[in-house]
Amino acid sequence: MRILVLGGDGFCGWPTALHLSDLGHDVTIVDNLSRRAIDLELEVDSLTPIRPVSERIRVWREVSGREIGFVRLDLAAEYDRLVALLLEHRPDAIVHFAEQRAAPYSMRSQTAKRYTVDNNVRATHNLLAALAATGIDAALVHLGTMGVYGYGWSGSAPIPEGYLTVKLDTPDGELKREILHPANPGSVYHLTKTLDQLMFAFYASNDQLRITDLHQGIVWGTQTPQTERDERLINRFDYDGDYGTVLNRFLMQAAVGHPLTVHGTGGQTRAFIHIRDTVRCVQIALENPPEPGAKPAVFNQITETHRVADLAKLVSGLTGIEIAHLPNPRQEAVENDLVVRNDRFLALGLNPTTLSEGLLAEITEIAERYRHRVDPHKIIARSVWRPGMETSPDLVDALPEPKAAEALAAS
Amino acid sequence: MRILVLGGDGFCGWPTALHLSDLGHDVTIVDNLSRRAIDLELEVDSLTPIRPVSERIRVWREVSGREIGFVRLDLAAEYDRLVALLLEHRPDAIVHFAEQRAAPYSMRSQTAKRYTVDNNVRATHNLLAALAATGIDAALVHLGTMGVYGYGWSGSAPIPEGYLTVKLDTPDGELKREILHPANPGSVYHLTKTLDQLMFAFYASNDQLRITDLHQGIVWGTQTPQTERDERLINRFDYDGDYGTVLNRFLMQAAVGHPLTVHGTGGQTRAFIHIRDTVRCVQIALENPPEPGAKPAVFNQITETHRVADLAKLVSGLTGIEIAHLPNPRQEAVENDLVVRNDRFLALGLNPTTLSEGLLAEITEIAERYRHRVDPHKIIARSVWRPGMETSPDLVDALPEPKAAEALAAS
Ligand SMILES: NC(=O)c1ccc[n+]([C@@H]2O[C@H](COP(=O)([O-])OP(=O)(O)OC[C@H]3O[C@@H](n4cnc5c(N)ncnc54)[C@H](O)[C@@H]3O)[C@@H](O)[C@H]2O)c1
Ligand SMILES: NC(=O)c1ccc[n+]([C@@H]2O[C@H](COP(=O)([O-])OP(=O)(O)OC[C@H]3O[C@@H](n4cnc5c(N)ncnc54)[C@H](O)[C@@H]3O)[C@@H](O)[C@H]2O)c1
Repeated sequence: MRILVLGGDGFCGWPTALHLSDLGHDVTIVDNLSRRAIDLELEVDSLTPIRPVSERIRVWREVSGREIGFVRLDLAAEYDRLVALLLEHRPDAIVHFAEQRAAPYSMRSQTAKRYTVDNNVRATHNLLAALAATGIDAALVHLGTMGVYGYGWSGSAPIPEGYLTVKLDTPDGELKREILHPANPGSVYHLTKTLDQLMFAFYASNDQLRITDLHQGIVWGTQTPQTERDERLINRFDYDGDYGTVLNRFLMQAAVGHPLTVHGTGGQTRAFIHIRDTVRCVQIALENPPEPGAKPAVFNQITETHRVADLAKLVSGLTGIEIAHLPNPRQEAVENDLVVRNDRFLALGLNPTTLSEGLLAEITEIAERYRHRVDPHKIIARSVWRPGMETSPDLVDALPEPKAAEALAAS
Repeated sequence: MRILVLGGDGFCGWPTALHLSDLGHDVTIVDNLSRRAIDLELEVDSLTPIRPVSERIRVWREVSGREIGFVRLDLAAEYDRLVALLLEHRPDAIVHFAEQRAAPYSMRSQTAKRYTVDNNVRATHNLLAALAATGIDAALVHLGTMGVYGYGWSGSAPIPEGYLTVKLDTPDGELKREILHPANPGSVYHLTKTLDQLMFAFYASNDQLRITDLHQGIVWGTQTPQTERDERLINRFDYDGDYGTVLNRFLMQAAVGHPLTVHGTGGQTRAFIHIRDTVRCVQIALENPPEPGAKPAVFNQITETHRVADLAKLVSGLTGIEIAHLPNPRQEAVENDLVVRNDRFLALGLNPTTLSEGLLAEITEIAERYRHRVDPHKIIARSVWRPGMETSPDLVDALPEPKAAEALAAS
């Protein structure tokens, strides 16, 4: 297949591009490098030493003999170039990762809120309008988030895959309807994913676009079999308070000897997936697109759920690093349960990597190895959901000597 | 109250600004005049001879002794000026009409689709972000559309005011939930109103903004007691295929002796409201804002529902003008029923203008009077919902002598 990977320089996009290339597909990455620019703005670097795109692609050619194309293009701003690219490239499939994806970043400032909405809505809508206008019948796979559902909304009912069956009373008796699960976004970032959903529903219906929306959990881990083939292919690892996601942050903190930063009681339960499974799920979704005219297909792209406090305990237990309970800069429920259906990927053959398998390797092979790259002043989350909310001061000024490695060696 | 009327130069905004000013409020209009610019693009004019904003405001001062302010500002593009305006003006209330509001225009081209999404999403989100950032606790009233609900979705159940009570099955038994009515938009324009709703829900919850969303039916009629006070205060009347709405188009067609253009069988049932009631509804909504922290209040701003074919018959019966059944350029159900709740406005004292009262006056006082301003080549709707859909050729090249006036005189 000819596949465009939009956002293919990012954390999920890069390993997906390699995975699809490795399977023999003809892959072209489209990215405006905005994520690297945000690193400059936040004065932080990936924990892992990621290389420039052209070097990544050259090394991949060396190790695999396969070509990956690259087009630097802003999906949100360069509509005419996007149309020209589609017409020239005529993709069979498109994977759309190209959005601003961090909830804390999206709440950081007025500018960041507006950027997140503008960038994400325009990127997605430009793509849909361009597909409708060109008539290119590519299978479109988009990365959504579990955060569109909210947490605890449906009581003890497991979160379904996108659509919810409800009953309503009518003068003619009870009516059953399948609806898009009601939106309960917890940040401007999550809000944009709920906007995306409505755009997908409209364009699937009006223009018969074939769309799959993957409601992904929090991705953890770093490497895939492809990114491991050469250090210069290494994947991004965000550890800072805005972009770092909870489990990877704990791993980094353990590696540098920083207290594990739990917001509030840590009673938040969240869904997780390893990056190795992300790339396989995307592949499965590409291979199983909906029919033209069908409503967008939705898969929950998650493999496990955990309470944040339990994850902290797990990592603390493995490494001996203490846990710090900090004020929560987010507006969210203090505690929630979470039961999620993920039958569709399991039925299509996904064989999940579990936390218990991957965790130790992540700490020693990634977090320990690159710990010298951590800036201790970037660890505490500082973006607040409303003006005036409190955050913790920095807990350490300089990083202590490695402890986790000793603890691990001793264990 | 200090009130900003965003989009106050438009069809609904102008008479609302006058109505609020007449009630003694301190009104400032904010508008980028984009609607007038679209008239230039479409090479069409309001049937009524509307005057430039500054003349409108000057004449209003002459006839009423009251001042209305005007700020030319693009809500979607000039965020910093918007923030400065809010801080300087410190409004108690804001009415937000400032969006691209025509479904056919929104489907006209890739450019128009993208403009509609960009303009409407950014205008609304900029406003929300600015209110959150400045902490200005103004009651915000936005104009939505009945089109967010779709038609026929809930079987025989009347369309509720914004929120729908549903039941879902859970392992612990049946659960009741009040949800935002599922979105079923029929065009890119309607889609943007469903996006607005989600943004409102988020900012009402996260930033305690007090928001009312008015799901308005199709507005008909032209004048209000204020716009009638001087011909130079006259309100806009759109008659063309993109911006003209169905009932006003029939009135114009009857006045010029053009066959009444029914799309398909005319089995579409729609909700209507007179412009005089629009302005009162907005006033009522402003006077009854939700509490901070409450979810957005939703009112259905409609007073009657009618089948399009019945409206055509009514106008044809009054005027003797024939009916033409044309191919429908929209993707929509051929027939639908429509029962809509509007209890909230009725409970708050709205006393509706009915079709039977206002229709004749509209034909003679507006449509007949300005019939010489109609361009017959702008009457047929030409924007299609999907590439390749058929539209009717022009039915007349030149307009015949007035017939409706004679028929009316005779009746
Ligand atoms: N990382 C996670 O834990 C996670 C969880 C759930 C969902 N997701 C979703 O998966 C997708 C990818 O996430 P990620 O972690 O790889 O993020 P990322 O920021 O690392 O990658 C996104 C890529 O898209 C590019 N991009 C952004 N806007 C663009 C535009 N307008 N034009 C062109 N390129 C643009 C960026 O430069 C970046 O390379 C996102 O949509 C995200 O919301 C991620
Ligand atoms: N007319 C109807 O039948 C009808 C029915 C239902 C809902 N509505 C809604 O009511 C509102 C007003 O409708 P209308 O018929 O008066 O439309 P209109 O086009 O006559 O008025 C809208 C006004 O907003 C201004 N505007 C648009 N974008 C702007 C921006 N970015 N910055 C500043 N000003 C901007 C335009 O110049 C125009 O004067 C719209 O939101 C519309 O969706 C109208």
